[in-house]
Amino acid sequence: MSTTLNSCAGKAIGRFISKPKSFPSDGFPLRPGFHRSGFSVKLQPHRTFSSSRICQTRTSEMSKKDVASLKVSQERLVGDIHHTAQWGTGKSWGDGPTEKGLSRLSLTPSDASVRKWFISTTEALGCTTTVDEMGNIFTVRPGLNNDLPPVYAGSHLDSQPTGGRYDGILGVLAGVEMLRCLNEGWVETEGPVGVVNWTNEEGARFPISMLSSAVWSGTIPLSTAHSLRSVIPASDTATVKSSLESINFLGSTPCSYTATPMAAHFELHIEQGPHLVSSKRKIGIVKGVQSYKWFTITVTGRDCHTGTTSFEHRADALVAASRMIVQSHRSAAGKGALASTGIVKVEPGSTNTVPGTVRFSLDVRAAHDTVVDAVEQELKEDFAAIAAGEDVDGLAAGGVKGIPCEVEWQTDSISPAVDFHEDCIRCVEEASEGLFGTQNLEKLTMKMVSGAGHDSVETSKRVPTSMIFVPCRGGVSHHPAEYCAPEDCAVGAQVLLGSVVGYDRLRAEKVKEGSV
Amino acid sequence: MSTTLNSCAGKAIGRFISKPKSFPSDGFPLRPGFHRSGFSVKLQPHRTFSSSRICQTRTSEMSKKDVASLKVSQERLVGDIHHTAQWGTGKSWGDGPTEKGLSRLSLTPSDASVRKWFISTTEALGCTTTVDEMGNIFTVRPGLNNDLPPVYAGSHLDSQPTGGRYDGILGVLAGVEMLRCLNEGWVETEGPVGVVNWTNEEGARFPISMLSSAVWSGTIPLSTAHSLRSVIPASDTATVKSSLESINFLGSTPCSYTATPMAAHFELHIEQGPHLVSSKRKIGIVKGVQSYKWFTITVTGRDCHTGTTSFEHRADALVAASRMIVQSHRSAAGKGALASTGIVKVEPGSTNTVPGTVRFSLDVRAAHDTVVDAVEQELKEDFAAIAAGEDVDGLAAGGVKGIPCEVEWQTDSISPAVDFHEDCIRCVEEASEGLFGTQNLEKLTMKMVSGAGHDSVETSKRVPTSMIFVPCRGGVSHHPAEYCAPEDCAVGAQVLLGSVVGYDRLRAEKVKEGSV
Repeated sequence: MSTTLNSCAGKAIGRFISKPKSFPSDGFPLRPGFHRSGFSVKLQPHRTFSSSRICQTRTSEMSKKDVASLKVSQERLVGDIHHTAQWGTGKSWGDGPTEKGLSRLSLTPSDASVRKWFISTTEALGCTTTVDEMGNIFTVRPGLNNDLPPVYAGSHLDSQPTGGRYDGILGVLAGVEMLRCLNEGWVETEGPVGVVNWTNEEGARFPISMLSSAVWSGTIPLSTAHSLRSVIPASDTATVKSSLESINFLGSTPCSYTATPMAAHFELHIEQGPHLVSSKRKIGIVKGVQSYKWFTITVTGRDCHTGTTSFEHRADALVAASRMIVQSHRSAAGKGALASTGIVKVEPGSTNTVPGTVRFSLDVRAAHDTVVDAVEQELKEDFAAIAAGEDVDGLAAGGVKGIPCEVEWQTDSISPAVDFHEDCIRCVEEASEGLFGTQNLEKLTMKMVSGAGHDSVETSKRVPTSMIFVPCRGGVSHHPAEYCAPEDCAVGAQVLLGSVVGYDRLRAEKVKEGSV
Repeated sequence: MSTTLNSCAGKAIGRFISKPKSFPSDGFPLRPGFHRSGFSVKLQPHRTFSSSRICQTRTSEMSKKDVASLKVSQERLVGDIHHTAQWGTGKSWGDGPTEKGLSRLSLTPSDASVRKWFISTTEALGCTTTVDEMGNIFTVRPGLNNDLPPVYAGSHLDSQPTGGRYDGILGVLAGVEMLRCLNEGWVETEGPVGVVNWTNEEGARFPISMLSSAVWSGTIPLSTAHSLRSVIPASDTATVKSSLESINFLGSTPCSYTATPMAAHFELHIEQGPHLVSSKRKIGIVKGVQSYKWFTITVTGRDCHTGTTSFEHRADALVAASRMIVQSHRSAAGKGALASTGIVKVEPGSTNTVPGTVRFSLDVRAAHDTVVDAVEQELKEDFAAIAAGEDVDGLAAGGVKGIPCEVEWQTDSISPAVDFHEDCIRCVEEASEGLFGTQNLEKLTMKMVSGAGHDSVETSKRVPTSMIFVPCRGGVSHHPAEYCAPEDCAVGAQVLLGSVVGYDRLRAEKVKEGSV
């Protein structure tokens, strides 16, 4: 069927118009949710596109102000957040009925329940669902030219075992709200738009984070991902594949950026850090993701009795490891990087035995790969000197030199810095500007680099990507008390909607220019 | 029966004489093992004592040289060490048949086997056995005046789960060898002498070290000790009492210093430290036991994401704890004390989460209580300052000040310094002098303070006590490769024998003076 353009008068009620109670029916098939354009009288005369004979508004013909006037419903969005938290309700952090965390491990029955809700809700909004071999769910709202790949909003619906209601969830549910707003606003996008729920982003049940977006991007082979085993105790011996089968989410579509292509990927997420909160900003315009490397450091000394061995005769692996941890903090601080140790294993682990072996994790991060490498290089030298009992920057001052220890480095993970796509970053910035006004843009937004990994790291390897951060209370996440205020959820969803529509407009221009 | 003194001619063969093939029998009952005095012709005419009509040598009439000429058999002693290691054979550390550790947890079937061997062996040497309510085994060789309490050699036959063949074992088996030497040398002591095997010294299966000597001394109530439960995994839910019953070692004699009194307690032990080995000395003359305190320190910060939280926004409990551990080493070094951390628990324990809680053990030791107290006091101030983010002695230099943490101290154990009895210390010193010669005494012995706790700490609360240390390879103990060279075992046993005989002579003098 060819595209036809018909004149159609919009019915203006303030900035928004109410939906007509009934729709014209003239024998043409109607796509559910694609019925009538309802826009401000300042718009160009409305027209119908595509197969529909009903008035709709084409994104490429909306002004920035029109885009900004598409308003998400805070009540509806926050309602969805708390409604879906019935599946995997976590620990309480307060007395209120919604003051509870979330415990929704990937591919469990509670995950299956929220997935079914996601599919039925978005299909009721006129979308088509695709489930791939990793259980990733792509829900797509058709646009004018459905030969184009969809612009996606995406994140994940799984949580940490003692997680909160916002990490990942907000990004998917804001995508659902985006679909509602597009319907409500009678907007027809140039190409399709969609929402994607990525499987096992948390890496909590199956121990690789961003697992399924990484299969989609080609980083991790499907067979590796399918055979990954649960690390949750209590005799859960399931693999990813067996879990997908058991909840009926093993799709037939290949998990690949070629089988389910994207035009772009936008991800709304809580910041999981304190910078927006502490600077009283509302939106983080995420330019990229930090570079990081993960190491396991093993310090080997010699076990001995705490009471019978003088300091001179000790090879105390823990005193050495403690100096290394202090030094890693200094080195990173000196280079504008971050260094963190989250795991320490001390052997043999007895009050009256000087530890002979200490293993600790070391997580080094910075905006640029070169800085991470410089910290690594400096610490390799410093740790060797500390193990040898030398005084590094006064750490051994006042102590007694003992027997040297040995130190070994194991590199567990290398994640180079990611630069998000400038078009996507500009879309987020413009959506923020549309919401806050040019005069408030600098005051209320912050260009930032994500410290954490997200599915967007994987999508950015294949398609233009950016992220939108919103503040979360105290910077806390991965905890039942993780909290994003309702108004902040809505602001984030508003910017997500604006970014997706903005990108759709942008690609229309590019299609016009012949550059896509 | 009254004591009779008869003249008796000794039969000299060099320094030692062979035992007669047959013994005179004149109708008088003979106590097994108490048959004939066989000493150097330089001695006073030999006489028989007590109920025996057979020639024996009274310790109070032996010269120092005579005492020194009672020679332990290295072969016999080391033979016993390896023979009894069949009960609870541990991990191999070498290829040789005896190059294995010991795994003989208290009150297990293997412990029962070695106990039976101990009783049958010492009873065959003429001793009488008493088993008390804690399964402590007192084996006593009668002396001239059996109204006097026995002078004991004592230690323990139990081991750590992955222990060695010497810790404790050497002290008991050297006691057995002492009994053999007294028999072989036809020595009648002034009062009885004995050997004691203390139950559960290691505190490995039942988690209180020196458990049964502490009941004996009145430090721990019997009911507490009896109800102590096994901490060994694999469904061992036994209590001390049920274990005593199951191996048939729940004696009827009250476990108390009044029910089984002692004149003195001497304990031969491997040093469990490197000081004798590294100074090439053979005997440690132990003057006492260090003072120590055990603490659990809890540092509370706040969990946060390693990637999303700048140093300024962190309350990193592990960076603080690492600085505290470094500082504890410094503080102790500055005061001639020891500080050690053997256990560290980091929560939540994830590579990409800055730890919100760190708990670590702190073991502070020094020769004097006042020094331990001074280290504790200094560290309480320093740790509070470190937790608050202040720079203590340059530890925070070059770092970034974050959010303050909190620190809490819990005192788990206080063990004041123990001074052993000067009479016992002198006996050990004189026995060493007798063995090495006055000219070598200083070169081959070292007066020292025990860094570890031993059953002698408990006995010293009630009776004159001292210890004898021998070198162990690399200072290693509580490990299968724990090793004391055969000649060092023999030297230690020789000094033990000399000390017990020396104390018996000393008390004879005191009895004579009327001071006992």
